Amino acid sequence: MGNRQYLTRSIDMKFTFHNPTQLIFGAGTISGLGKAVAAYGNKALLVTGGGSVKRNGSFDRAVMSLKEAGVSVAECSGVEPNPRLSTVERGAEIARKEGCDVIVALGGGSTMDAAKVMAAASFYEGDLWDMFPHGQQNRRLPERALPIITVPTLAATGSEMNCGSVITKEESTLKSFVTAPCLYPKVAIVDPELTMSVPTNQTAFGVCDLITHVTESYFNGVDGTPLQDRFAEGVIMTAMEWGPKAVANGNDLEARAQVQWASVVALNGWVQVGTFGPYPVHMIEHVLSAHHDIAHGAGLSIVNPAWMRFAARTRPARFVQFAERIFGISPKHPEDPDAIAEGIDRFEEFLRSIGCPTKLYEAGIGDTLLTRYAEDTVIVAHDAEGRLPGRPAMTKEDIVEVLRSAL
Amino acid sequence: MGNRQYLTRSIDMKFTFHNPTQLIFGAGTISGLGKAVAAYGNKALLVTGGGSVKRNGSFDRAVMSLKEAGVSVAECSGVEPNPRLSTVERGAEIARKEGCDVIVALGGGSTMDAAKVMAAASFYEGDLWDMFPHGQQNRRLPERALPIITVPTLAATGSEMNCGSVITKEESTLKSFVTAPCLYPKVAIVDPELTMSVPTNQTAFGVCDLITHVTESYFNGVDGTPLQDRFAEGVIMTAMEWGPKAVANGNDLEARAQVQWASVVALNGWVQVGTFGPYPVHMIEHVLSAHHDIAHGAGLSIVNPAWMRFAARTRPARFVQFAERIFGISPKHPEDPDAIAEGIDRFEEFLRSIGCPTKLYEAGIGDTLLTRYAEDTVIVAHDAEGRLPGRPAMTKEDIVEVLRSAL
Repeated sequence: MGNRQYLTRSIDMKFTFHNPTQLIFGAGTISGLGKAVAAYGNKALLVTGGGSVKRNGSFDRAVMSLKEAGVSVAECSGVEPNPRLSTVERGAEIARKEGCDVIVALGGGSTMDAAKVMAAASFYEGDLWDMFPHGQQNRRLPERALPIITVPTLAATGSEMNCGSVITKEESTLKSFVTAPCLYPKVAIVDPELTMSVPTNQTAFGVCDLITHVTESYFNGVDGTPLQDRFAEGVIMTAMEWGPKAVANGNDLEARAQVQWASVVALNGWVQVGTFGPYPVHMIEHVLSAHHDIAHGAGLSIVNPAWMRFAARTRPARFVQFAERIFGISPKHPEDPDAIAEGIDRFEEFLRSIGCPTKLYEAGIGDTLLTRYAEDTVIVAHDAEGRLPGRPAMTKEDIVEVLRSAL
Repeated sequence: MGNRQYLTRSIDMKFTFHNPTQLIFGAGTISGLGKAVAAYGNKALLVTGGGSVKRNGSFDRAVMSLKEAGVSVAECSGVEPNPRLSTVERGAEIARKEGCDVIVALGGGSTMDAAKVMAAASFYEGDLWDMFPHGQQNRRLPERALPIITVPTLAATGSEMNCGSVITKEESTLKSFVTAPCLYPKVAIVDPELTMSVPTNQTAFGVCDLITHVTESYFNGVDGTPLQDRFAEGVIMTAMEWGPKAVANGNDLEARAQVQWASVVALNGWVQVGTFGPYPVHMIEHVLSAHHDIAHGAGLSIVNPAWMRFAARTRPARFVQFAERIFGISPKHPEDPDAIAEGIDRFEEFLRSIGCPTKLYEAGIGDTLLTRYAEDTVIVAHDAEGRLPGRPAMTKEDIVEVLRSAL
């Protein structure tokens, strides 16, 4: 498709939007989990991650609420960061054996993403990997899923209120994503108290993650979306205002709440609607974290500034707008390279100020596999010319260049 | 309740959100009406207003699309501005007699609001007016409604993607509103081409209407909603950028699209979520337009600036924020009265620049009934002390003062 599609979209606004998830937001709302779940089933598969929810009491609170509402519980624990297809298959098997009629995800993005595909697995014939785009011609999207209830314990992913899921196929080190209407959670219970015990570095990575969700559509979306631009800028500014407070003091409930609210909105579609932007920074990062098991938000923090310096050559006016509206930088002209550079520098400084890495060496990643990362990236997402979609579309050489600049 | 509730909300963010309406946006999308409706029924009540949709061809396009999809049509035309309860009853009677299983609203806010209550009437026992709050103790909200499909022909009301309806009871000159989950349209088909023939003054009133939807929650909502503030400011700035273009050239499809998109977002809940703001400017205006049959947007344009000057005394920092972020005014301190005055003056100038009235005399309204307007307003909405809810809550004397300042 190339980039030409973008240049004519501004007078051709056309899009659909439908997010049917019911959101319940606020400190203490986890106590309503049982009631919310009971509306959809009486046997829940409770999906969790590495064990923090058991240590911090969230798991017990969830189970108590479910039992009080008459919902019995089967458990699938141990969903790893960058969740694997085999874990999804394991959870789906438990759900089948135990006769679960509703899936509850209590955890971070990995847990929720895995739970979504477990929910779809109940009605999916054949290989679950066929849901995911990875170069094959015969992709089959899931059309039906068990009801999903999400209870995020991390402010980052936005998975709680959208229909997307990112899964890694371990044998091939391929990380891929699926979006399908049946994967919208029925209810998202977003309780910022559950994020109070998130460690400082994960809190910072979450802030970076949510901001990157917004910068992707902001920089890669079509022209002529002034309202979505404002919304994106609003999310970024709110995250930059409240993120450092949550990082500085994890017990600051208001900061936790504001950051988590920003993380929900950053990827529930309100910012992206009508922008049709691909996610090149995410696609590149997915390869890094598939190879190295680094935190997704940390990987984004490394890739995004480097990508921005590369992409600014193609769309300078948009990067001037970013510098001007986010940082109050006055450009000398609408494509002022100094304003662009200062805007990106200050964004990178912000990421560093909250403790995010912005160079590959900080994550222990060297230059030996740069070509491999680029190749893996375009396997998962590519246009007709084999380039990674985005503004601009990127050749493998472009991806290597961006990663090299982040060494 | 008074105002104290507001002062403690900032560290207590708690809210729910659920907007299940499917949005289909874009020029030409009306051609998909039949397919959208056929998913919900095969006999539609097509509700329309004063006849413009027949003159400009929208009606024929809608009927053709419906018929092509195998949907037969009964008609309820002639919904008036500030729609009356008797009109709702007339439409509900047609739906009943004709056995309609889906309600299609093709028109402006009045048409959509009336259609919503017609849809609920099919399942509502007793007096429809019992849905509306007007001082009575035994209010009964509707719990069920026929599927509603909205096709707005005016960018203004936001009714196409929310669950609210404003209806006037003619004998008493009382205008009241109802919101209920069953009133969410199943689908909103928002086709900006349908707004191309809207006259200049109605276009301007629509811009004022959509901005006022946002200023209500922005000025009357709880503290501690930084993201919602940014979204509200984004809608206002977008409407102020694109509204004048739509007013200047009604054939500018891009301007029509941007304004209509802003109008959808201004009242679909994305800006208001978690703000819990009452709508004092709307409540006062509803009385004016119930008494005088002036356009709702024109009434808002008169009341809002006058109300802002009154309310700024109570919440000066918020009005400084408005001046700073919307107009780039630099305040000398966080409650700078000069910045506040300049922000409101410039907002009023904007309204005048697009042709909206900002004084009562321009709408032919004098000072003889000011006390009556105030009394009618607090009949429809009042707190335990008989005051109109808002920041600040307003006594009848306050309302008279505001209206007097707009003479």
